[in-house]
Amino acid sequence: MTFKRKKIAVIGSGFTGATTAFILAQKELGDIVLVDIPQLENPTKGKALDMMESSPVLGFDAAITGTSDYKDIAGADLVIVTAGIARKPGMSRDDLVNTNAAIMRSVAEQVKQHAPHSTVIILSNPVDAMTYTFYKTSGFPKNRVIGQSGVLDTARFRTFVAMELNVSVEDVSGFVLGGHGDDMVPLLRYSYAGGIPLDKLIPADRLEAIVERTRKGGGEIVALLGNGSAYYAPAASIVQMAEAILKDKKRILPSIAYLEGEYGYHDLYLGVPTLLGGNGIEKVIELDLTADEKAALDKSVASVRNVMAALN
Amino acid sequence: MTFKRKKIAVIGSGFTGATTAFILAQKELGDIVLVDIPQLENPTKGKALDMMESSPVLGFDAAITGTSDYKDIAGADLVIVTAGIARKPGMSRDDLVNTNAAIMRSVAEQVKQHAPHSTVIILSNPVDAMTYTFYKTSGFPKNRVIGQSGVLDTARFRTFVAMELNVSVEDVSGFVLGGHGDDMVPLLRYSYAGGIPLDKLIPADRLEAIVERTRKGGGEIVALLGNGSAYYAPAASIVQMAEAILKDKKRILPSIAYLEGEYGYHDLYLGVPTLLGGNGIEKVIELDLTADEKAALDKSVASVRNVMAALN
Amino acid sequence: MTFKRKKIAVIGSGFTGATTAFILAQKELGDIVLVDIPQLENPTKGKALDMMESSPVLGFDAAITGTSDYKDIAGADLVIVTAGIARKPGMSRDDLVNTNAAIMRSVAEQVKQHAPHSTVIILSNPVDAMTYTFYKTSGFPKNRVIGQSGVLDTARFRTFVAMELNVSVEDVSGFVLGGHGDDMVPLLRYSYAGGIPLDKLIPADRLEAIVERTRKGGGEIVALLGNGSAYYAPAASIVQMAEAILKDKKRILPSIAYLEGEYGYHDLYLGVPTLLGGNGIEKVIELDLTADEKAALDKSVASVRNVMAALN
Amino acid sequence: MTFKRKKIAVIGSGFTGATTAFILAQKELGDIVLVDIPQLENPTKGKALDMMESSPVLGFDAAITGTSDYKDIAGADLVIVTAGIARKPGMSRDDLVNTNAAIMRSVAEQVKQHAPHSTVIILSNPVDAMTYTFYKTSGFPKNRVIGQSGVLDTARFRTFVAMELNVSVEDVSGFVLGGHGDDMVPLLRYSYAGGIPLDKLIPADRLEAIVERTRKGGGEIVALLGNGSAYYAPAASIVQMAEAILKDKKRILPSIAYLEGEYGYHDLYLGVPTLLGGNGIEKVIELDLTADEKAALDKSVASVRNVMAALN
Repeated sequence: MTFKRKKIAVIGSGFTGATTAFILAQKELGDIVLVDIPQLENPTKGKALDMMESSPVLGFDAAITGTSDYKDIAGADLVIVTAGIARKPGMSRDDLVNTNAAIMRSVAEQVKQHAPHSTVIILSNPVDAMTYTFYKTSGFPKNRVIGQSGVLDTARFRTFVAMELNVSVEDVSGFVLGGHGDDMVPLLRYSYAGGIPLDKLIPADRLEAIVERTRKGGGEIVALLGNGSAYYAPAASIVQMAEAILKDKKRILPSIAYLEGEYGYHDLYLGVPTLLGGNGIEKVIELDLTADEKAALDKSVASVRNVMAALN
Repeated sequence: MTFKRKKIAVIGSGFTGATTAFILAQKELGDIVLVDIPQLENPTKGKALDMMESSPVLGFDAAITGTSDYKDIAGADLVIVTAGIARKPGMSRDDLVNTNAAIMRSVAEQVKQHAPHSTVIILSNPVDAMTYTFYKTSGFPKNRVIGQSGVLDTARFRTFVAMELNVSVEDVSGFVLGGHGDDMVPLLRYSYAGGIPLDKLIPADRLEAIVERTRKGGGEIVALLGNGSAYYAPAASIVQMAEAILKDKKRILPSIAYLEGEYGYHDLYLGVPTLLGGNGIEKVIELDLTADEKAALDKSVASVRNVMAALN
Repeated sequence: MTFKRKKIAVIGSGFTGATTAFILAQKELGDIVLVDIPQLENPTKGKALDMMESSPVLGFDAAITGTSDYKDIAGADLVIVTAGIARKPGMSRDDLVNTNAAIMRSVAEQVKQHAPHSTVIILSNPVDAMTYTFYKTSGFPKNRVIGQSGVLDTARFRTFVAMELNVSVEDVSGFVLGGHGDDMVPLLRYSYAGGIPLDKLIPADRLEAIVERTRKGGGEIVALLGNGSAYYAPAASIVQMAEAILKDKKRILPSIAYLEGEYGYHDLYLGVPTLLGGNGIEKVIELDLTADEKAALDKSVASVRNVMAALN
Repeated sequence: MTFKRKKIAVIGSGFTGATTAFILAQKELGDIVLVDIPQLENPTKGKALDMMESSPVLGFDAAITGTSDYKDIAGADLVIVTAGIARKPGMSRDDLVNTNAAIMRSVAEQVKQHAPHSTVIILSNPVDAMTYTFYKTSGFPKNRVIGQSGVLDTARFRTFVAMELNVSVEDVSGFVLGGHGDDMVPLLRYSYAGGIPLDKLIPADRLEAIVERTRKGGGEIVALLGNGSAYYAPAASIVQMAEAILKDKKRILPSIAYLEGEYGYHDLYLGVPTLLGGNGIEKVIELDLTADEKAALDKSVASVRNVMAALN
């Protein structure tokens, strides 16, 4: 038997893609191919080489390469898609969706051709619609096409709670359903510090403020940076999902999963609790929802469907 | 007895400073204050917050904050200086040196005032002159003012050797003296793979090419990126030095150290092998040099002194 | 400023003490002094040296030494007490308590003399009474004398739940109050997998069986080993508490804490949720209990007091 | 594509086998089956369960099980053999060799049947002869049957040098050829601290004392323990080799390898520098030896052949 390192392709070499590659390498989860468009081939190679040159001091072994040729992802085990453009001044939301959907279809075709057995994690925005687009274009089975948003939303929530209580982030848990950002449906009754429900530890108004800050968490970073969006926490969130899959950890994490009746929805990618393991999404975990929670989730779904309606 | 986290100030929130902060946090080496100029206060806060929001998924506890107010570094245990500008078109080298020296003096004054007991690692370029400037301005003892260049140079060298031989980076070691980049004096007779001298494993011309690539290693990344310079490997290199100091590891690492007769030089900061531990540079390790090596080092020193002569 | 490694004394070099030292060293939490009685001085030195000889391959720097002379713990920052005998055939429970209490008093006197500012974690059995004995003998403030049992009990509970559901142990949390083992008061309403209350995931009879297995968890290992008791999970549990304290992580973990009115009890060491940080037990977290839970806790307290009544 | 955890069988559940399993699990290198004879089935299960119960606090996911049925190693990717008896009073060395060879043949038959594609690392003593015995019995290709002794010998050497110089173990390297212990052939000209040859840093007599202490390193621990032999450093050494193979790290490490002409020897397992990667021993690295070194190696080989001559 021969042991080979896993091969991981990261599509998109912007801040999020590059930071994802860097964390993956630090954890020795596999060799990494960073892919971007031909115009960015050299910067992509530069970032990859710079990362490799950190390996002797950080103590990891991983080949990290940059490319603009999809042939280089041949046989990849895992593909992470961060490609896509940000909304520009004067661009309608529908234009944005269609521009990124076109990118996503192109990426999906390439991945289908060169890494047909890969498991895929999508981060590109709007992520529910983009994950759906990749799924439809690639024809991959649903368990192998997975979107990220909930790990990031809960990471932000957990950070704010830990700051509020001055406790370790390791002891705070959170739980969200539905879409990203404004469409997020937090389930506070499943959120705890040290196992203790948060409403016993934090006054209602402070807790509401934390939820609201979480909803606007991406915008808060955008406003501070002035020119760009968050990448450390998004990258870390993707890596957590990647690690759960590559190490078959059977983690219970929120994923954007394809629904076929779960929670009463069909033919839709939506953020739900899942079991993430060696087969990708091994299970969608269904919970009984209160009427209020179901209503909020319906609203989130309507918002997702609305975005998808804009897809040509 | 109360146990408090170490406090680490990172001056300069550009790619290198931010990446340094991120790696420090991942290793739980302390709480981190990221400092930049008032015009960049918000982006600095944004990067710090984004990093903190990665902590629940990466599993570390560290307060990471951004500021433009040096009061916030009060009592810092360790200060890492990455501040400085890059050379701009039309700017003479002397202008660059004096601009960065002015920044360094200003930083040194602030550090002296707010973190008078700190140990300081300097990365700003030209690093030999900038470390000297910080040392003179701060009046700190020489063991607590340390420059970084050799860890990065050897990291690049080790990476290239590992790629050449297709072996683990963990099994390759390298050794450099003197200034950074072109002024680097590699000591190949002290460089090995698996303990085996490299000249027994790699043909002379290939080895020479690797040395030359190492010398130009910074420029290779600059050329690829097109707009900016390396930051992953530089940040990792600083963190290795920081960890050696904070954990009192007594590591033998190349540092830019103040010389008072060692290797025959006086009143100069130069890259030499050192013992890095809880007291910063605990010892400069002196080696017998061949005539060729001494000549190369003299040349490197002349180059460093030449830069320093430009300081007003 | 000089950075020195923390000094950790581990009293008792049996399987638990030695394994504790090994995990502490792997995590580079400090230099370690392993202490045992003069008759065991050589084996203690042997274990310490064997561990140190693993450091080059495991990549940690820590001095690990064995001794029978308490002078060698001088100035220790943290003291972990695993010393004590196991019950022998024909020995009454009261004899056991008094034998170990005598050992504990002797250890406390030594720690008071040689490491008067240390924070102390006790594992010796019966642990509630032994922690009380150390507290009274040493005169140390209550926040610096801490017993371990709940981290281990919840670790076992989490393991059994993870096995039952085939999910990652990282996603299972548990919550216990009261004494160790049979006296444990599990709070299932504060126990979750992926944030979901366990009673929604596991049938009642299976959950009850898991609780019962947890109560008897120590006995299960004793019965299997045939000659000795558990040490891997106990050692790991102590290290988690030690890390929370040394790194000032502010973790919410169950500790055996001195109560002065909390939960309605006085002058008693009991397992309760605590905030563990740089000051040791920084807070006892009080929860509203149901009548059933309070009754079970009262029963657990009676059992603890009963053991303590046997102390001469 | 489905990602499955690697399966690692550890044969022999004594201190070395159990500690090996514990370190493998901490590193999440795979699921672990700990195997021992039927009379020790329960203690083996007890150790495995105790380790698993540490996983929630140490933060690893790994199934660890104990068994006496070789069917449970079915399909193992890696097999580590620590089984064998220690020499008892009145037992001749030849009796010991033959007793352990019988054990090794039995293990090899089982591994051949149940894990025919596995890579195998042998630690049982006398390790050169036992690795040869496993190789011949199993019929496995030579690259997949590997003995451990040099990693441990160099670990001890590096520890003693680091203690002598008061430097980090990470900066000390050592190099040995030949058999274990007394038969070890240290190559001091390939041993360094911070890349600097040791004879420039340590007086000749001290260095000779360190070499001698290394040769007797196993005996030093046996003498201290009084009842048993080293297990922390041996276990760590095996894990380093296992990690190099499972992660395809291409490490340059000393292994006991089957020689077919290398260094002038044939049909012999001997400690030599090797490249360890996904194919096991991917290469034996040949070095030019001085006449003295070759003579010492010949002597070591004679000693190994002498042990093998005792095999029935």
